[in-house]
Amino acid sequence: MKAEIIAVGSEMLTPAHLDTNSLFLTHRLNAAGFELHLKTVVGDDSDDIREALCAALGRSRLIVITGGLGPTEDDLTRDAVAAALGRRLALDPGILAGLRKKILRRSLPSSRLVERQAETIEGARVLPNDCGTAPGMWIQHGDAVIVLLPGPPRELEAMFESQVEPLLAKLSPFRRLASLSFRVTGMMESQVDGLVSPIYRQYPEVQAIVLAGKGFIGLQFLRRLAPGENSADLEELSAKIRAALGDAIFTESDESLEAVVGRMLREAGLTLAVAESCTSGLMAARITAVPGSSDYFLGGILCYSNDVKTGLCGVPADVLHRHGAVSAETAEALARGIRERLGSSIGLSITGIAGPGGGSEEKPVGLVWFGLADGAGCATERRVFGGGREAVRERAAAFALTLLRSRLLGKGKGGQP
Amino acid sequence: MKAEIIAVGSEMLTPAHLDTNSLFLTHRLNAAGFELHLKTVVGDDSDDIREALCAALGRSRLIVITGGLGPTEDDLTRDAVAAALGRRLALDPGILAGLRKKILRRSLPSSRLVERQAETIEGARVLPNDCGTAPGMWIQHGDAVIVLLPGPPRELEAMFESQVEPLLAKLSPFRRLASLSFRVTGMMESQVDGLVSPIYRQYPEVQAIVLAGKGFIGLQFLRRLAPGENSADLEELSAKIRAALGDAIFTESDESLEAVVGRMLREAGLTLAVAESCTSGLMAARITAVPGSSDYFLGGILCYSNDVKTGLCGVPADVLHRHGAVSAETAEALARGIRERLGSSIGLSITGIAGPGGGSEEKPVGLVWFGLADGAGCATERRVFGGGREAVRERAAAFALTLLRSRLLGKGKGGQP
Repeated sequence: MKAEIIAVGSEMLTPAHLDTNSLFLTHRLNAAGFELHLKTVVGDDSDDIREALCAALGRSRLIVITGGLGPTEDDLTRDAVAAALGRRLALDPGILAGLRKKILRRSLPSSRLVERQAETIEGARVLPNDCGTAPGMWIQHGDAVIVLLPGPPRELEAMFESQVEPLLAKLSPFRRLASLSFRVTGMMESQVDGLVSPIYRQYPEVQAIVLAGKGFIGLQFLRRLAPGENSADLEELSAKIRAALGDAIFTESDESLEAVVGRMLREAGLTLAVAESCTSGLMAARITAVPGSSDYFLGGILCYSNDVKTGLCGVPADVLHRHGAVSAETAEALARGIRERLGSSIGLSITGIAGPGGGSEEKPVGLVWFGLADGAGCATERRVFGGGREAVRERAAAFALTLLRSRLLGKGKGGQP
Repeated sequence: MKAEIIAVGSEMLTPAHLDTNSLFLTHRLNAAGFELHLKTVVGDDSDDIREALCAALGRSRLIVITGGLGPTEDDLTRDAVAAALGRRLALDPGILAGLRKKILRRSLPSSRLVERQAETIEGARVLPNDCGTAPGMWIQHGDAVIVLLPGPPRELEAMFESQVEPLLAKLSPFRRLASLSFRVTGMMESQVDGLVSPIYRQYPEVQAIVLAGKGFIGLQFLRRLAPGENSADLEELSAKIRAALGDAIFTESDESLEAVVGRMLREAGLTLAVAESCTSGLMAARITAVPGSSDYFLGGILCYSNDVKTGLCGVPADVLHRHGAVSAETAEALARGIRERLGSSIGLSITGIAGPGGGSEEKPVGLVWFGLADGAGCATERRVFGGGREAVRERAAAFALTLLRSRLLGKGKGGQP
């Protein structure tokens, strides 16, 4: 069933702000069997909201409108939707009483403005807001359903999960949307596509999406199923994808690379310490974004200056002098040094030239050396990344996690002095 | 003049991907005097693209369409736009020759598909693509202008800057859009709004936007100016805003807090070292995102485990034992310890409970202690942040930078033992 999103809010038409709610909604709508085929972002303008809804009614069966339900004069969604549908607005005494209670509890000043949030559209089913003040609405209009949700993500997500999803489930029979996803690391997007496109092209019913994420390539395969139809061809396709990509697939869910590596460390009973130069905390911040990472992550050293490399990480001054800070020798000394100093099972190091300055012909901007030390010794790897300072740093942090995963799979280099 | 954006691409209707090109375009269109009042995201579907353009022609004078210009069968923008405008497509021999040359240079296989990119819409002005293969187009259609740009950001941005902006400048006379922006740190969004809304409400001609960024509150004030009109009231408003917010304003551009703090450190000839526990690299990664940060940032220690706090940062074991890892005493010992070990002018520490586990009644999830040590002594600060693990970590990293800025302004606590 065709769905679309209308996001209301002038701030999303400024250079600083995107409509991030639609990521959550897209995910949940897909899972519920709806195909999102259009998104519109409109400012706080009655005419634009009304016109966007009228256009949507001509093509979609489910229309989710977010934002513009608050108490201020800029919040015009209720009025514009009522106008588009030719329905009246009425003050709901139950909502009004609830609003007054909430306002009292928070010691906020009540006002006629706040009470606008108690206005509901004729015939709408009210969706109470447990996390805020503005209620949502579910409106059946001819063949179509219009859902109004508040803009703040916390309120929108809670309302969608607890109230909208159960109602959507009753809108069946739909065509279900079956989907499969893979995340791949250690390969370029073009390499991945080169391997998988000859496979998915054999399945014209399957929609394939290949996307570069932060340090991984995501693959998504979607197949719309009619009632009673099964997803055998999607399963056949996924078996072929697994065979083609092998260990490069690090998850078949939306798990992050750091979560997967963390799980492997915990299961193996290993601990990790890091020495980061050019990334200076980016990798450790990713590792510790995973709840419970203190089970395996001990800490590390941000060896931005050479003094820290020698003083705290134990890189011999003559190694730095002879080979430079960005070299296999320094990467190795950092990995061994951090492992020894923190007493971890594994020491992982990154040292490189993030740019824009500091490059030379021999050692260009983007050159990064990695070291991975464990009980058996230390391995080093060299890569040159493109794309500017932030991209080099992000790619380096992701690649170090990829190296660590290879090692934990028992396949990477390392372990051999 | 009213403008809108139509972003074409099915990937932007998946849960993983947003239309980020529109941030760049919004910024540049505003600067050129265009007011963006609507954005539409459509999939690779001819009907949806055609309908979106027809609707846009009814309300906007400038319509920028991005994506769908590539060589594959999914790239439908050219055909759909031609259909919407009732114009024909024709193969442009000049573009075709250029394409063949580029393909030869890159040793790519030529094909009928690649050559689709040489098809132009009748009457269009062709915009050559210096960074890729698909050319853009500038089409005058009645009162309106339609600009087609390629989807890859690098190609789009280069084409917009070198070719579209000069053409837009000739579309005058417009109403210019004057804008002012401020970024504020160390205050909650509601506090900022409480101070500034009584001011900006006096200027009904000015559009005010208040937005929470990563660790700062952004204020933007927009005023459309008719030809000959000046922005005196915007200047009056900004003087009042400066008076109301004072030092809480850290920039009047889009500079980041870490860039501002970095500049202050460099100008004062001071160096910085950090000890991060719960944030584990987030703050250092922000500090070193600024090119040239090695001038003032020496490095730091990620003291995730207690052993690292005592062993590497020099926190006395009995301080940890008596007061716990998350305490004023530990924050102070970390800040003093890192300053001493790295020989920096300033030592900055963060130790807290990011959650979801590890909280207690006395020390709840979200509790974070900060230490700032300099030549005169050490000050500590305590905060409790809400919003889950990632929000706590991000807010803590931002607050530490705010503390450092206060100290550098000579206004914060610190310096007194």
